[in-house]
Amino acid sequence: MVSRSVLEVRYAETDQMGVVHHGAYVPWLEVGRVHWLRAAGVEYAELEREGLFFPVVELELRYRRALRFGQEVEVRTRLAELASRRLVFAYEVAPLGGGLAAAGQSVHVPQDASGRVRRLPEALYDLLQSLLEPHT
Amino acid sequence: MVSRSVLEVRYAETDQMGVVHHGAYVPWLEVGRVHWLRAAGVEYAELEREGLFFPVVELELRYRRALRFGQEVEVRTRLAELASRRLVFAYEVAPLGGGLAAAGQSVHVPQDASGRVRRLPEALYDLLQSLLEPHT
Amino acid sequence: MVSRSVLEVRYAETDQMGVVHHGAYVPWLEVGRVHWLRAAGVEYAELEREGLFFPVVELELRYRRALRFGQEVEVRTRLAELASRRLVFAYEVAPLGGGLAAAGQSVHVPQDASGRVRRLPEALYDLLQSLLEPHT
Amino acid sequence: MVSRSVLEVRYAETDQMGVVHHGAYVPWLEVGRVHWLRAAGVEYAELEREGLFFPVVELELRYRRALRFGQEVEVRTRLAELASRRLVFAYEVAPLGGGLAAAGQSVHVPQDASGRVRRLPEALYDLLQSLLEPHT
Repeated sequence: MVSRSVLEVRYAETDQMGVVHHGAYVPWLEVGRVHWLRAAGVEYAELEREGLFFPVVELELRYRRALRFGQEVEVRTRLAELASRRLVFAYEVAPLGGGLAAAGQSVHVPQDASGRVRRLPEALYDLLQSLLEPHT
Repeated sequence: MVSRSVLEVRYAETDQMGVVHHGAYVPWLEVGRVHWLRAAGVEYAELEREGLFFPVVELELRYRRALRFGQEVEVRTRLAELASRRLVFAYEVAPLGGGLAAAGQSVHVPQDASGRVRRLPEALYDLLQSLLEPHT
Repeated sequence: MVSRSVLEVRYAETDQMGVVHHGAYVPWLEVGRVHWLRAAGVEYAELEREGLFFPVVELELRYRRALRFGQEVEVRTRLAELASRRLVFAYEVAPLGGGLAAAGQSVHVPQDASGRVRRLPEALYDLLQSLLEPHT
Repeated sequence: MVSRSVLEVRYAETDQMGVVHHGAYVPWLEVGRVHWLRAAGVEYAELEREGLFFPVVELELRYRRALRFGQEVEVRTRLAELASRRLVFAYEVAPLGGGLAAAGQSVHVPQDASGRVRRLPEALYDLLQSLLEPHT
């Protein structure tokens, strides 16, 4: 499964180079991840209320082409790797109707509220496993 | 008491107008407030651990002159009004060695962790009262 | 005319109080303003390309009720005052299906790229005037 | 050369997990980079005014330990790789008096104002080369 989130570049996301600041992509990937989970039937806000957190332990972004205020961008998100204590999401960011602007991935380790590593509950693991998309 | 916090404009705080985005001042005022409390002997992080929160209920900012990446700015903070259930902080933001860039104020209502309004503890009220600075 | 923009609270917009940080509303109002202009037939990105900028000279926000990650919010924007060198936008922020979370306004002075105050072009002034909404 | 920048965690940089949001580190690395250049005698704001930009083309971050509001953190920055059309900066982020919180690197391609790739001017290249620090 690949989820698609459409976002509008906000003025506040630009910097004095006249394009979107490289840090502004990070919340976009997070939106993509939340939408992917929702498409899988999992509400991330609920997971947290039940004591399961997916903090980011690694983040990678490659920027190909600058984005500008006024553009709409699509974030395409997939679950690229899965283990009982590790999830890897992969992302593509593209302006609507255009080529790739950026690609990246984030690695997550499931934790409880106190920060201890937790195995994914079995039912959740099975669900995510069925939606894994290792290759683009 | 007026506290002085020196901050360096971060590149990420600029926008495509080539100056600091108006929203970037909001975290600066917060830094100013935290420093004012620290100068008063109150660590805001500790207050929260003890269950006392100062959420912002009103915010006002007037922008006089644009700020740019590479500038250092001073945030001057004072406690302008105080009641048992209301604090008003006032701020001036100025580039080092220059005139006023912005001025503003924030209004806070003390709350507990569940969001219920709380009176300020008496000792804290008395301390803050002794440092009140109604006029610039 | 009142425009309506629907936004989803982003995880990155929360703070350790467990709710949306008060500074995160500022880019939302900006989105509301850009959408209002678009609904009026004016693309803000184009205005800037033509050398007309609407920097914020005053900002006011009153927070009534906290917002949380996972909520959708509506920003309702109207042009509340207009003069040839001054625009005032007014905003309401409300969770979908709920009461008011925040209200505010921003004051803008039209400028050229070098920061000099400019009168609004007459055709633009007339258009905006026809859409003025002084009262809620 | 390794430069050291001390930053205070801002309240606005936390999220509802109660720790610093992973995206908030990105502007910190940028501060580290600007300070490293300054220690080398290069003011990044001046470089841009002269038409030389160092946009980020790749970004990598590994998070080891959460950071909290109230902590002071040190960003240690070094230039890890250099070619005439490519710079790689490496970073360590550590709370004062504590172990490593995060490490990362950013890759930059020198460009002119219109986004065309530029070779580094020879004098700048030689200066940077003399300060290269490939290993920690």
